[in-house]
Amino acid sequence: VAGRAGGSVFVLTDYGLADEFAGVVRASVLRHAPGAPIVDLTHGVPPFDVRAGALTLLRAVPHLGPGVVLAVVDPGVGTARRALAVSIAAAQGDGPCHLVGPDNGLLPWAADVLGGMRQVVAIPPSPPRSASLPRVRGATFDGRDVFAPAAARLWQGAGVDELGEDVDPADLVRLEAPRVVVSPGHLETEVLWVDRFGNVQLAAGPDDAVAADLGPDLDVAAAHAEGATRRAQRVDAFAALGPGALGLMVDANGRLALVCDRRSAATVLGMRPGHTVTLRAVDRDRRSS
Amino acid sequence: VAGRAGGSVFVLTDYGLADEFAGVVRASVLRHAPGAPIVDLTHGVPPFDVRAGALTLLRAVPHLGPGVVLAVVDPGVGTARRALAVSIAAAQGDGPCHLVGPDNGLLPWAADVLGGMRQVVAIPPSPPRSASLPRVRGATFDGRDVFAPAAARLWQGAGVDELGEDVDPADLVRLEAPRVVVSPGHLETEVLWVDRFGNVQLAAGPDDAVAADLGPDLDVAAAHAEGATRRAQRVDAFAALGPGALGLMVDANGRLALVCDRRSAATVLGMRPGHTVTLRAVDRDRRSS
Amino acid sequence: VAGRAGGSVFVLTDYGLADEFAGVVRASVLRHAPGAPIVDLTHGVPPFDVRAGALTLLRAVPHLGPGVVLAVVDPGVGTARRALAVSIAAAQGDGPCHLVGPDNGLLPWAADVLGGMRQVVAIPPSPPRSASLPRVRGATFDGRDVFAPAAARLWQGAGVDELGEDVDPADLVRLEAPRVVVSPGHLETEVLWVDRFGNVQLAAGPDDAVAADLGPDLDVAAAHAEGATRRAQRVDAFAALGPGALGLMVDANGRLALVCDRRSAATVLGMRPGHTVTLRAVDRDRRSS
Repeated sequence: VAGRAGGSVFVLTDYGLADEFAGVVRASVLRHAPGAPIVDLTHGVPPFDVRAGALTLLRAVPHLGPGVVLAVVDPGVGTARRALAVSIAAAQGDGPCHLVGPDNGLLPWAADVLGGMRQVVAIPPSPPRSASLPRVRGATFDGRDVFAPAAARLWQGAGVDELGEDVDPADLVRLEAPRVVVSPGHLETEVLWVDRFGNVQLAAGPDDAVAADLGPDLDVAAAHAEGATRRAQRVDAFAALGPGALGLMVDANGRLALVCDRRSAATVLGMRPGHTVTLRAVDRDRRSS
Repeated sequence: VAGRAGGSVFVLTDYGLADEFAGVVRASVLRHAPGAPIVDLTHGVPPFDVRAGALTLLRAVPHLGPGVVLAVVDPGVGTARRALAVSIAAAQGDGPCHLVGPDNGLLPWAADVLGGMRQVVAIPPSPPRSASLPRVRGATFDGRDVFAPAAARLWQGAGVDELGEDVDPADLVRLEAPRVVVSPGHLETEVLWVDRFGNVQLAAGPDDAVAADLGPDLDVAAAHAEGATRRAQRVDAFAALGPGALGLMVDANGRLALVCDRRSAATVLGMRPGHTVTLRAVDRDRRSS
Repeated sequence: VAGRAGGSVFVLTDYGLADEFAGVVRASVLRHAPGAPIVDLTHGVPPFDVRAGALTLLRAVPHLGPGVVLAVVDPGVGTARRALAVSIAAAQGDGPCHLVGPDNGLLPWAADVLGGMRQVVAIPPSPPRSASLPRVRGATFDGRDVFAPAAARLWQGAGVDELGEDVDPADLVRLEAPRVVVSPGHLETEVLWVDRFGNVQLAAGPDDAVAADLGPDLDVAAAHAEGATRRAQRVDAFAALGPGALGLMVDANGRLALVCDRRSAATVLGMRPGHTVTLRAVDRDRRSS
C-alpha cells in the first residue's frame, strides 16, 4: 500500500551537489514511490568519509520525524560489501523506522540512538544493466539502483524481510568508537566535527567534563602541536565570549565543543576531525595569580 | 486546522549545505507540519551576515507565492535577542503572510516590501532540553527548536498571537538603509550584492540614474581604490556588451547593476558587498572627442 | 486540469545555491502549479557552460520518472535567442514528456535519448515588468518569468502548442558532437566530465574500446601534455585497483572512464572537461617483458 509506512525519505550522501548524483537519487526514490516527501539531510559528507557520514547521521536522526533514512557513503561500491536494510527495534512512533545503506559502519550508530536494530537484511545487487558487453560490466550506481528503490519500497510499507535475506545485526561492520579518556583534571578526546561556523565538536560530553572535574577554566592543547596551549573558559552561549576568546560549551547535540564568538575556533586552533585534543583544568593557584 | 494557511514554507539560512543543519530544520518543519511543501530559498548566506540575509530576503519575497518565510541568520543565538513571528498587513492573497526569524534586522525590509507588519510577537525560548547539567546548559539550535516549529504552526493556520506576546513593530531592530547619494551628473551608492555570475548590484535604482542625469556613458570608480576609473555604458542586455566591456543595466530586481557579458564584473572591478561606488556622467565634449 | 500531466518538475541550472536564484525558480513553479513535486537535478553547472549542462541532462534523463524537465543555462538571456518547450516523441510512459529551456543546444541531446522531439514551440518573452522606465528595460530573469511558468503549465496538463508557435525541430541550435576517433589499437576521445570523486568520463563507450581492440592494458596520454603517458588497466570496480593505480572502466552511464580507487584520477592525470585523451593498446611483447 502506497505510503503505508509514510513519513519522509531522509537522504544523506557524499555525492555533493555539483553533479547530478543527488538529483538522480531523488528521482529514483520518486519513480519507485510517487508522492514520497524527500528531505535532504546533506550531500556534503566529504568524499569516501564513512566516519564523517556516520557521525552526521548520529547527530541528525534524533531530530527526524517518521520515515526512512537513505544513507550512501560507499567507497566499496562494486565490491562484495553488503547493501543493508535495517528496521528499528523500538517503535517510538515519531522517529525513522528504517535505515538503508552500505555495510561499512555508516548505519549502526544511528540505529543505536534510534533504539537499536530489530531486523537487518542484505539487499541483493541490482541486475547487470547489459549482458552485451563481454568483458566489462558497467560500474554500479547503487544509490540510484539499489538503495533508493529499497528506501522507496520501505516508505510504501514493505517490511525489510521483503527486501532480502536476514543478516545477524551483531555481524555488521562497526567503526571504532570515538576516543574519550578521563582522569582527574584531565580529558583527552577526539575532534568529531568542525561545522560551517568553525565550532569544534569533541567526542566527550558534559558528564565527562564533570567526571574530570575540569572547572570553569581550562588549557586546551592539540596532540598534533604539543607546544601550543590555549586558555578556554566554560560558557553557556557564544556571546558570553569576548573577541577572540576561546570557550568550551555544550553544543546543540549535547557534546562539548570548542567555540569562539562569530569566529572559527577551528581556524584559531588549527583543528580538524580526527585530531586529538587535551583539556586540562587550570590549577587554582595559578589561575588566581 | 492543518494546512489552513497553506502555501509553502520558504527557508533562508546561513547554515550552508555541508552540515546537516538545513536538513534538520526541514525535518523539524515536517515533523510539526506533515505535508508542508518546503522551498529552500538559499542556505548560502555568508555566516553571521545579517545584512546579506536581509537583502537576499528582500530580493526574493516579491516573487514567492503564499506561505510562511522561515529565516535564520542569527549570530545572537543563545542571548536575549528576541525570536519573532510577524504577520503581514496587506493580505495580498498571493504572497507570504507570515515571517519567522530573529530580531536582528533580518525581517523588516522583507516585511516592508510585502506590505508592512500587521502584528509582531516574541516567541518564547524553547524549554531547556536537560535539567541534569548543573552549570552548563546546552547550546541552543533555535532554527530547529524555535523557528521551525513556529513556522510549522503558522503554516497549519495558527495566528501569530498564538505563538507569543505582542511586540511593538516600531521597536524591532532595523539595519541601516543602503546608501544612495544623488547629485547632478553624479551618483554615489553602495554595493549590495555580487551574484554567482559576478554582477555587481547597487543600492541605486533607475530613478536615481534619471535624477542624476547620468546619460548613456559613465565613469565608474570604487571609493576603496580612488585612482582607478572604468568607463561603462548603459545597456539593456548582457549580450549588448563587447568582450571585456563594462555595462550598467537595470537588473531583474529593478536595481542598477554593473555587469560584463559572460564574465565577472566584480572581478574586473575588485568590488564586494559594502563597497561604495561612484558613477559619473561623461562630459559630452570629452565623450565625443 | 491541475496535475493532469503529473510527475515531477526536474530542475537543472547554472544558478548555484549561494544566491536565491534557484529558490525563486522553485517558488515560481509552485506559484503557477501548486502541489508540483520539484526535484533539483543540480544547480551546479559551471556558469554559462551550456555544453556541461547538456551533458549533465543527457546523463540524468534516462533515470527520471514522468514529468517536465526545466533546464536553464542561458548566457544569451535578454537576446533574441528563443525560449523552447519540447514534447517528446515516444510516450514511453515512465520518463519525462516535456523539456523547457533556451534554444542554445542545452536540450536536444536529452530529447534524443528520451525518444526524440515530437513538437517544439517558441515561448514568447514575458511582458516587460514596467513601462515607466523610458530608456532602460529591466534585465530579464527568464528562469523565473518564462521557463518556470511554462514548466508549471505543462505539469498541469497543457500541451506545448498552448505555449507558443511551432518551431521546426531540425532548426534548433545543436552543439558539436563529442569527439571519438577509433583506429586499430588506438582511441582518441574527449573528456566529457570530471565528477566529484575525480573520475574522468570519456566520450567513448565500451563498443569503441572493442572496435579499437584496446585489450586489458593501455597507455593513457593527454593531448595537452604530450610527453606524459600513464599505464592503465581495464577493471570492473574501483576496488580492483591498487593504491595509486589507474583504471579504465565502464561507468554507471555506460561510458568509458579513467578512475582511481578512493582518489581523483583527474588530479593524477591533470585532466579537465574538453581535453583530448589518447588510449593506446600496450604491445603484447612489451607488456609481457
